[in-house]
Amino acid sequence: MNSDNKSQQKLPSLGGVGGGLEIILASKSPRRQELLRDLGLKFTVQSMDIPEVFPEGMGMTEVPVYLAELKAEAFRPQLKDNQLIITADTIVWLDGKVLNKPADYADGFRMLRDLSGKKHQVLTGVCLLSTEKKVSFYASTDVWFKELSDEEINYYLENYRPYDKAGAYGIQEWIGYIGIHRIEGSFFNVMGLPVQDLYEQLKKF
Amino acid sequence: MNSDNKSQQKLPSLGGVGGGLEIILASKSPRRQELLRDLGLKFTVQSMDIPEVFPEGMGMTEVPVYLAELKAEAFRPQLKDNQLIITADTIVWLDGKVLNKPADYADGFRMLRDLSGKKHQVLTGVCLLSTEKKVSFYASTDVWFKELSDEEINYYLENYRPYDKAGAYGIQEWIGYIGIHRIEGSFFNVMGLPVQDLYEQLKKF
Repeated sequence: MNSDNKSQQKLPSLGGVGGGLEIILASKSPRRQELLRDLGLKFTVQSMDIPEVFPEGMGMTEVPVYLAELKAEAFRPQLKDNQLIITADTIVWLDGKVLNKPADYADGFRMLRDLSGKKHQVLTGVCLLSTEKKVSFYASTDVWFKELSDEEINYYLENYRPYDKAGAYGIQEWIGYIGIHRIEGSFFNVMGLPVQDLYEQLKKF
Repeated sequence: MNSDNKSQQKLPSLGGVGGGLEIILASKSPRRQELLRDLGLKFTVQSMDIPEVFPEGMGMTEVPVYLAELKAEAFRPQLKDNQLIITADTIVWLDGKVLNKPADYADGFRMLRDLSGKKHQVLTGVCLLSTEKKVSFYASTDVWFKELSDEEINYYLENYRPYDKAGAYGIQEWIGYIGIHRIEGSFFNVMGLPVQDLYEQLKKF
């Protein structure tokens, strides 16, 4: 990787991340951009609006990988030989179905009421695509919410407006502080990117 | 609680947090201060240097509570009736013993080499003390490190200098991104404060 980042030069093994390719993160999510930056990678951001539609009856672990690949394939026609596209899709899975981004306040309220007092799964599918290779994987984290009061839900929705977040919450925001007492799996996966798995896959790419 | 914080006024249930007492966080840790602030609480910070010494043979879950209480009791002589002191102590427990803050680079290297490829426990003891009441509790989180290379350990120690951190790492820093693929329990507990448990205990205090 051609990089002028001083920190990266100190770590030889990170110098090879991404197989020397120019990394493009295809995601509008500021959280994903921040996570990838904190991983120490140099990259640019591009995005495309891809409808997040998946075939009916698709299983929990297939959906996020299918959607991440859909997003990556949309870039294929314009992909150059020295480029590597990273796409990701995060879903919240509760009681056998996907919770999307909330359409409005009432929808967000209903989602958080549904999540309250229960365990749910957060899955992120990731796709790495170059002109020569495609690697897809997913990570899954179990998340437990305590019983949320209506006051707590209303306070969060009014102050944080989580309309860009699957399941209507950000674990790194107030509702995560007061409401989530346990997770099993990767925390950063719940934020939108399983950075440890991604780091390993990039080293091997 | 007398508060001019607009956000707090919107949430009635948070208005009662801390039993109307003036909250004092007795910790020098910038991470704890940030976590408590993000919980939405108004508080001041005071600190005292208390030697973190515990009786030999003390068990894993007793040590952090013992040390949190020790820190709180040091404030008792100056505690006013309208004040609530919060103290905390975080320990890293590996293979039956405590990993303290690293004394120097070599010590940090040895700790991270020991943590590499294994599961360890992070425990935070918390003590809430007023002139009328004392409540102590702890939270425990299991943390799994992948195998770390010497290059990765050196890169982290050189760039992040984790000499104020038990076990020589911060989960929210680069080493946590590339090295930790799984936790079981509270993420914020690993950062130094189990905010969800603390929120519940403050509501009941």
